[in-house]
Amino acid sequence: MDLIQLAHGSGGRMMHQLIKEFFVPAFDMRELGDSAVLKNTFSDRIAVTTDSYVVSPLFFPGGDIGRLSVCGTVNDLAVSGATPVYMTAGFIIEEGFPFDHLRRVLASMRSAAREAGVRIVAGDTKVVDRGKADGLFINTAGFGVVDEGLELSSSKVKPGDKVLLSGSMGNHGVAVMAERNGISFEPPLLSDVRPLNTLVRRMLERTDKIHMMRDPTRGGVATTLNEIASESGRCIVVQESAITITPGVRGACELLGLDPLYIANEGILIAVAEPSVAEELADEMRTTSEGVGAAIIGEVVEGPMGTVLLKTSVGGIRIVDMLSGDQLPRIC
Amino acid sequence: MDLIQLAHGSGGRMMHQLIKEFFVPAFDMRELGDSAVLKNTFSDRIAVTTDSYVVSPLFFPGGDIGRLSVCGTVNDLAVSGATPVYMTAGFIIEEGFPFDHLRRVLASMRSAAREAGVRIVAGDTKVVDRGKADGLFINTAGFGVVDEGLELSSSKVKPGDKVLLSGSMGNHGVAVMAERNGISFEPPLLSDVRPLNTLVRRMLERTDKIHMMRDPTRGGVATTLNEIASESGRCIVVQESAITITPGVRGACELLGLDPLYIANEGILIAVAEPSVAEELADEMRTTSEGVGAAIIGEVVEGPMGTVLLKTSVGGIRIVDMLSGDQLPRIC
Repeated sequence: MDLIQLAHGSGGRMMHQLIKEFFVPAFDMRELGDSAVLKNTFSDRIAVTTDSYVVSPLFFPGGDIGRLSVCGTVNDLAVSGATPVYMTAGFIIEEGFPFDHLRRVLASMRSAAREAGVRIVAGDTKVVDRGKADGLFINTAGFGVVDEGLELSSSKVKPGDKVLLSGSMGNHGVAVMAERNGISFEPPLLSDVRPLNTLVRRMLERTDKIHMMRDPTRGGVATTLNEIASESGRCIVVQESAITITPGVRGACELLGLDPLYIANEGILIAVAEPSVAEELADEMRTTSEGVGAAIIGEVVEGPMGTVLLKTSVGGIRIVDMLSGDQLPRIC
Repeated sequence: MDLIQLAHGSGGRMMHQLIKEFFVPAFDMRELGDSAVLKNTFSDRIAVTTDSYVVSPLFFPGGDIGRLSVCGTVNDLAVSGATPVYMTAGFIIEEGFPFDHLRRVLASMRSAAREAGVRIVAGDTKVVDRGKADGLFINTAGFGVVDEGLELSSSKVKPGDKVLLSGSMGNHGVAVMAERNGISFEPPLLSDVRPLNTLVRRMLERTDKIHMMRDPTRGGVATTLNEIASESGRCIVVQESAITITPGVRGACELLGLDPLYIANEGILIAVAEPSVAEELADEMRTTSEGVGAAIIGEVVEGPMGTVLLKTSVGGIRIVDMLSGDQLPRIC
């Protein structure tokens, strides 16, 4: 049978075969020692990130757990101002998982890694008994180079700063949710999962007046804005009308009873920049395919500390709080 | 209830609380951005490794999944000749997991990290629904510095080389297996899980004639010797009588029907070195607490390529093959 067995995680011959047949070709690995020893092409400062991916289902419109794991890692580095260089990938596989699915996931990681220009340099595989995992979990670590003198931090956020969003929101969460519930839309709603490092590079080359960036994944735009407000001790006021959302996502949210502000995204970023450069920065972003929907969505003001306020399209103001839990578990 | 809920992995307030109350103090984290930006204290070459830990049960005599995850990462770097510097940790937690257990695991990681002198610089937490994981999985990545000019590789292994083992084998696997099956021994059999970086440092300072090192974890001493034989294209002959094994582990193996050669270890290493330095290297190893049981257990010879031969205590010779699967799944 073409299914993963517990023995594939054993350290024995079957595991060696699995690694040789699947992982080595997928990532062009050469040595299979305990660590990958790499030329240090790093500058003075390196950025490090780690993430576990437990998305359910593993395959969804516009992507899969493999693409997600690479893009998520690359994007965490990119929004920290780092150029992604290397990443590692650890696989926890449930006994009985189809080899064919593993093959698809690895191919997808490989192609996403190429797209982002990042190298997967170390891996690990564990297999757990049937019923003790959910098909496949992937954990990654990523590291990259931070340019000399570049410092992006929520502590630099100050009143007057503009808040930019690089594209329309809600696409990833809605695509996963629809797939999970067996709902399909016409035209199909696709996840926005994609690497953002090229967009970030362009932004940083354009101006040195970006104070911080973050990608609104789990918890969505609302949660990320709350994090920024809370960490910087500022108030952020957002114009609801400035936030783009596709008609498909809007319709799906209404149907499913979801608030798109809290839905996970995997291909957009939030940036806070000095007002003097906000317009040209948005223009620059719009020249890229990832940032074509970029807009200034709000600004940082003196006001109740750590608060996010939304000026609604009908003219009201409401507090956008952090949710306690989540509308959509296991979205990434 | 003091149990993990699905919402603790959501990206919302509950997850932020979990991170603030548990992970930040455990690892002395400061910023909670998407990546940790670090001063590059790296030399010209860095070593990178990743591992997932799915050991069952999570707590066992002599250690737990937390200590295991730190030591395993540190040791993979150390046997590659690297000085461990940083590591990351990703947690996949099953809904309903007790906070108290998480607290114990984190404390154990913290103390193992101190012991090994490594810093945990980035983390991630995901929670999956009940029944979709097995309590807790931990994935780590580790990186370290490789000294200028140091090159450890199975390709350097050549006929005449001596094979050294740093201590008695089988302790980790038997301790986990006993705990899993509700068996206890008197005196108790403890896992050997411990950091080996100090031992490795001492060995590398003693001589530059070590050709390679590896820690015999999953698959045990037999599998690691097979890896070395296969990668180097050499034949390794091992003296059974030279391999130490405690009476407790030997007894447990007989009782459980296990071959100790294939049992996972988490606190010993195999080194291959030039014959001229083998004795003094073993002496040096014995001056450390981790290497007190060090011995020369065999040598590399011209012979059937990729083969491991065992000279048994009763005078026979048998081929020690790699197992197809494993006697003990989920041992690390």
